Amino acid sequence: MKQYCFLLLLLYPFLPSSAQPHGHGHDHHNERAIHFPDTDQYLTLVADLHMHTVFSDGSVWPDIRVEEAVRDSLDAISLTEHLEYQPHAEDLPHPDRNRAHDIAAELALPHDLMVLRGAEVTRSMPPGHSNAIFIQDANKLLIDDPVAAFEEANRQGAFTFWNHPNWIAQREDGVATLTDMHRDLIRRKLLHGIEVVNDLTISKEAFRIALDNNLTVMGTSDIHGLVDWQYDLHKGGHRPVTLVLATERTPEAMKAALIAGRTVAWFENTLVGREENVRAVVEASLRVTSAAYFGASSVVEVTIHNDSDAAYLLENLSGYSLQSDLGPITLSPNGSTSVNVMTLKQLGDLSLKFRVLNAMVEPEKALEVTLQIKPE
Amino acid sequence: MKQYCFLLLLLYPFLPSSAQPHGHGHDHHNERAIHFPDTDQYLTLVADLHMHTVFSDGSVWPDIRVEEAVRDSLDAISLTEHLEYQPHAEDLPHPDRNRAHDIAAELALPHDLMVLRGAEVTRSMPPGHSNAIFIQDANKLLIDDPVAAFEEANRQGAFTFWNHPNWIAQREDGVATLTDMHRDLIRRKLLHGIEVVNDLTISKEAFRIALDNNLTVMGTSDIHGLVDWQYDLHKGGHRPVTLVLATERTPEAMKAALIAGRTVAWFENTLVGREENVRAVVEASLRVTSAAYFGASSVVEVTIHNDSDAAYLLENLSGYSLQSDLGPITLSPNGSTSVNVMTLKQLGDLSLKFRVLNAMVEPEKALEVTLQIKPE
Amino acid sequence: MKQYCFLLLLLYPFLPSSAQPHGHGHDHHNERAIHFPDTDQYLTLVADLHMHTVFSDGSVWPDIRVEEAVRDSLDAISLTEHLEYQPHAEDLPHPDRNRAHDIAAELALPHDLMVLRGAEVTRSMPPGHSNAIFIQDANKLLIDDPVAAFEEANRQGAFTFWNHPNWIAQREDGVATLTDMHRDLIRRKLLHGIEVVNDLTISKEAFRIALDNNLTVMGTSDIHGLVDWQYDLHKGGHRPVTLVLATERTPEAMKAALIAGRTVAWFENTLVGREENVRAVVEASLRVTSAAYFGASSVVEVTIHNDSDAAYLLENLSGYSLQSDLGPITLSPNGSTSVNVMTLKQLGDLSLKFRVLNAMVEPEKALEVTLQIKPE
Amino acid sequence: MKQYCFLLLLLYPFLPSSAQPHGHGHDHHNERAIHFPDTDQYLTLVADLHMHTVFSDGSVWPDIRVEEAVRDSLDAISLTEHLEYQPHAEDLPHPDRNRAHDIAAELALPHDLMVLRGAEVTRSMPPGHSNAIFIQDANKLLIDDPVAAFEEANRQGAFTFWNHPNWIAQREDGVATLTDMHRDLIRRKLLHGIEVVNDLTISKEAFRIALDNNLTVMGTSDIHGLVDWQYDLHKGGHRPVTLVLATERTPEAMKAALIAGRTVAWFENTLVGREENVRAVVEASLRVTSAAYFGASSVVEVTIHNDSDAAYLLENLSGYSLQSDLGPITLSPNGSTSVNVMTLKQLGDLSLKFRVLNAMVEPEKALEVTLQIKPE
Repeated sequence: MKQYCFLLLLLYPFLPSSAQPHGHGHDHHNERAIHFPDTDQYLTLVADLHMHTVFSDGSVWPDIRVEEAVRDSLDAISLTEHLEYQPHAEDLPHPDRNRAHDIAAELALPHDLMVLRGAEVTRSMPPGHSNAIFIQDANKLLIDDPVAAFEEANRQGAFTFWNHPNWIAQREDGVATLTDMHRDLIRRKLLHGIEVVNDLTISKEAFRIALDNNLTVMGTSDIHGLVDWQYDLHKGGHRPVTLVLATERTPEAMKAALIAGRTVAWFENTLVGREENVRAVVEASLRVTSAAYFGASSVVEVTIHNDSDAAYLLENLSGYSLQSDLGPITLSPNGSTSVNVMTLKQLGDLSLKFRVLNAMVEPEKALEVTLQIKPE
Repeated sequence: MKQYCFLLLLLYPFLPSSAQPHGHGHDHHNERAIHFPDTDQYLTLVADLHMHTVFSDGSVWPDIRVEEAVRDSLDAISLTEHLEYQPHAEDLPHPDRNRAHDIAAELALPHDLMVLRGAEVTRSMPPGHSNAIFIQDANKLLIDDPVAAFEEANRQGAFTFWNHPNWIAQREDGVATLTDMHRDLIRRKLLHGIEVVNDLTISKEAFRIALDNNLTVMGTSDIHGLVDWQYDLHKGGHRPVTLVLATERTPEAMKAALIAGRTVAWFENTLVGREENVRAVVEASLRVTSAAYFGASSVVEVTIHNDSDAAYLLENLSGYSLQSDLGPITLSPNGSTSVNVMTLKQLGDLSLKFRVLNAMVEPEKALEVTLQIKPE
Repeated sequence: MKQYCFLLLLLYPFLPSSAQPHGHGHDHHNERAIHFPDTDQYLTLVADLHMHTVFSDGSVWPDIRVEEAVRDSLDAISLTEHLEYQPHAEDLPHPDRNRAHDIAAELALPHDLMVLRGAEVTRSMPPGHSNAIFIQDANKLLIDDPVAAFEEANRQGAFTFWNHPNWIAQREDGVATLTDMHRDLIRRKLLHGIEVVNDLTISKEAFRIALDNNLTVMGTSDIHGLVDWQYDLHKGGHRPVTLVLATERTPEAMKAALIAGRTVAWFENTLVGREENVRAVVEASLRVTSAAYFGASSVVEVTIHNDSDAAYLLENLSGYSLQSDLGPITLSPNGSTSVNVMTLKQLGDLSLKFRVLNAMVEPEKALEVTLQIKPE
Repeated sequence: MKQYCFLLLLLYPFLPSSAQPHGHGHDHHNERAIHFPDTDQYLTLVADLHMHTVFSDGSVWPDIRVEEAVRDSLDAISLTEHLEYQPHAEDLPHPDRNRAHDIAAELALPHDLMVLRGAEVTRSMPPGHSNAIFIQDANKLLIDDPVAAFEEANRQGAFTFWNHPNWIAQREDGVATLTDMHRDLIRRKLLHGIEVVNDLTISKEAFRIALDNNLTVMGTSDIHGLVDWQYDLHKGGHRPVTLVLATERTPEAMKAALIAGRTVAWFENTLVGREENVRAVVEASLRVTSAAYFGASSVVEVTIHNDSDAAYLLENLSGYSLQSDLGPITLSPNGSTSVNVMTLKQLGDLSLKFRVLNAMVEPEKALEVTLQIKPE
């Protein structure tokens, strides 16, 4: 066979479809892109820092993870293969635990996507499974003592977090609970974050632990199969991600933001995180684009643009009745919604206070926001 | 011209399209049908008892109102033309105020639709506009004194209600407020209901008045133009309607239910009404179809079928955490949704308590429901 | 009642919804706009010149016809009420046959829509029904002798056309057939056009008559009910229209174009008209946006943008095989489609010849077009 | 780590999502199922007999290929890894060329899916790439001499076919052309079929070769990445497949049908195959469900149900004009379409003849079908 043929074959699955020698071009209007606006102070980067390929127990080659991320418009991913759990080892006996990352990193070069070296330290409880991101060499984390693995990860400059602390395979009641080992890791600053959101689950108890122990709130897909299937993208679903509020779009700035705890997890239609971070994202999303009284009446139509993927559910906390709504108000994602506010007399300015029911800042507490309105 | 020709022409606009001499048949899959299930005790009839045609200030002939209703699968409508306000009188000088009803009633004969004789008594405030349904002769309501018009309507056996008490054309602040005249009409049992929902508005104050004065809660479209346009049906919208909990599908049973106050107004994604009625509709909508623990864990997956058009928004009031949700839960309309409940140990039965955020039983209070679960 | 109240009521149904005192604003993204590009020589105006309101046997007030046209982005309409057939006369005894037009013309003032004065001369066969557009006074067409009505219409400067010559109520076999009276009207230049398309029908025989007798090809909705329902707009349907190739966007230029026969009827997914007109529209619609060989191969990917609502169905008449298609090719409306052409060796330019199966230039003949390609 | 944990981890990616310990269940309404009806004589099995996994140059583990097939409702697949081309060999050095099949076959056990052992003999031209299906041991096909590989495949009882004979990497003009080697293989009955359809390409020349040399017409995806992406399933696309007309739903019956040439390839909206097979599928798809004259007219409305995924494009070859269509008629897939036929007088029965423009029975010839109609 000619060399030429091999070369083409080799490139074949990785070529952009427009370069492939067949049929109708497919333009991927990026309707599945995950979008949240930058905040006043930070860039809002979208990251999924927990996923698997055939190099541990996932079902895809790393190229699929790269293309999923590109299609979802993510800023960063990490292929966090299980270090100790290698069910495909018979078929993929590769000894280098960096291998999946190295393949993905090269494939991502033409794309505007950061691939961060990571690994999943896979242990029974405690400490359960943990991810280490921004490491230098995954192989060196293959150490018997889990605490030693954390020490090594930190030596390499890692950001680490506790995975699915609510996983019923490791804790039958699903209640995320700190052990002494965790407390020690936290105290020694070896453990920095915790998954409040993993795949199709969200953990109120993990959120409590994050807040009480100053751990970074994480949301990840932990995808093993296909993102398209697991999250019903064709019906408008999305994978869980972590919004990272960073000063720049660089790995360094991302790591600094993660260490500093500047994150919001985005799960189904729920945002969850520390109040200042959730507030920054929600307030950046909302903008009053018009406000005008109907004729001589004292009812003012207020139009709010929501520049985000979240369909914010608002509870009206203002003293004003609305003429347009009773019960929760839904602000259409990436669109505008109007509410008609009864101010009893025409006002030069007013403020509307809402509880954002799907923006959780504590396990039992949703964010409150105030919009300042100046009717024309 | 031949008689034959005239006859066909006459029937032309009213023929079912399948009988018309042209092109591709159009089957109207009833995807826009408004659906709520019957309750334990009653049939849930869907009614829109406030609308207009060219015979007052509407923009369509009565046949369109009939077909809109058939397409929406309504059980009952009433063409409530303004008695005193006849902006098309130059073109339609017909002196008989029953005319629109009579045309519609005949056109509705082939359909399973009740057309109820009604009229809108159209006055400045007080008492503002009011509808009288189940009347015998609309002409006799054309009386100078508005109270006398109510007396006549009641003599004819009418169910009457106050229209859009929040209308800013009649009250600049939009705050529904009882006047002495209204109090007197209520006291004398001449006024029986009040629109809490009219067209694109909902009135918290009208709801308060309904509850405090034992007035029937009404929701109507007050449609003048086209239902398809006003409520963006192609985007999944629906007209506001009144769900009437009746013993039979007859005008008599409907009237009895309306007089007895057994109604729920359905507006956008909000149900509003007296608690017992809202509860009956919501509880009839929900059914636990399966509940099973995941293996040996104490997390039980509970699947709830929602047999209604409302996307119920639930707040979890149980002591149990959910592994699947934080913040409001949405129960898909006409479909099933699962929640994963953490019961700490496996239980033979449990109860889940929810607040249904979009089912309002008082101006500031949403319905609470409890689901009984027996895991397999 | 205060005057103010009446005034508001009067305006109520005609107000833009954003000015109405209620709920959520509805922006009508113009997804239902009918769009064909201008041709090299002419503006492509979109007209529906046959429709009815309650002023003859239609089911809507003229305001609905205006708003339907605005939503469909039409350039021109005409309310062509039956002069002699007035089934609503009992209710609407208005003696002035210009009344519907006058109402619509005033309502259209704020919109970019031409409302042309017209009427339907409604007779048994011969001559059947005919429309006269651009008349001065519809009342004067109410003459016993149908030929005299044509003479009067022409005296007023009308463009006239024969309606639904295939109508089975007037001709049981549906075969459009000229009578002596029609021949005489054509010879005397009193009759100028013929509906090849009416509502849900298209007539091959009428098309033959148009071509043989130099009559203008017309396509109209003849809508009596609602455009949204009759043409299933929510499923992507559209009303039939006439594309008029005019020098300016004025009634005068439209009339000149109609008299000159510069029209194409647009029916379901079919364009039908005289070859030069159909060619002008189709060629204006199509643009080769890129053409590049795959590497060293002799297969060239040609991308064609289709700037029109028609999904053109192409049969490949070139000597070249396609690697992307066998059988008809569909060019996506308002979008781009690629075909891969096998040219056997790399060429500096080539031409592709297609039959456009849904662009009829004779009853049994579809348009042929040639695209010139210069591969990069 | 406890054994229990490993076991759960092992099963994790393969568990039905309803058994997984998280969130909302996802029911896969089988809207993407590929459907064609059984014919009068045969079952219509849907097969994709050319695809790749990480075990050659594909991007997924075999489990994804199984689930894709289940979601597409395929009856049979074959994982045809390149025997000689192993770009992932560094990572997957497994010496057994049956490995991918063995994994898939076991994963398919709970599903109603036949996984057929196959392999791709991957050579430069001639003979290019070929698939052998229904083999016993892929390893034994790893022979230097390509003809010897065909001999061995046939010894094992294989059905063999020539892959993408139009592939520009092996033939720059993309023109499928028989070589002496191919002629010899065909003459010796060692080569049985040819891909007329591969991935996004269709080859007119390959179709000619199939017909002239009695080779079985094949259509395959040759998928390396994800079916969902490559064929834009969320926009209604589908992978190319081969419809196999078999006496039973067994591997043996499939093989017999393939050897006998009873196939139709289904590519985009085109069916392609030998006339008797295409006819059987198309005729099984179409059923006249009603036919009735409009009143006393001689226009009969004929409703045709299309029980298949193909949107058949019909050219009317009858002497009768249609009142509903000029130019191609589209029969909605899995639905009903009406045409109005002008028969000039009322007939007790009639036949309608159509060319099915997207059902190719020769490179330049589409199928003709006749529907017998008996009006009520």
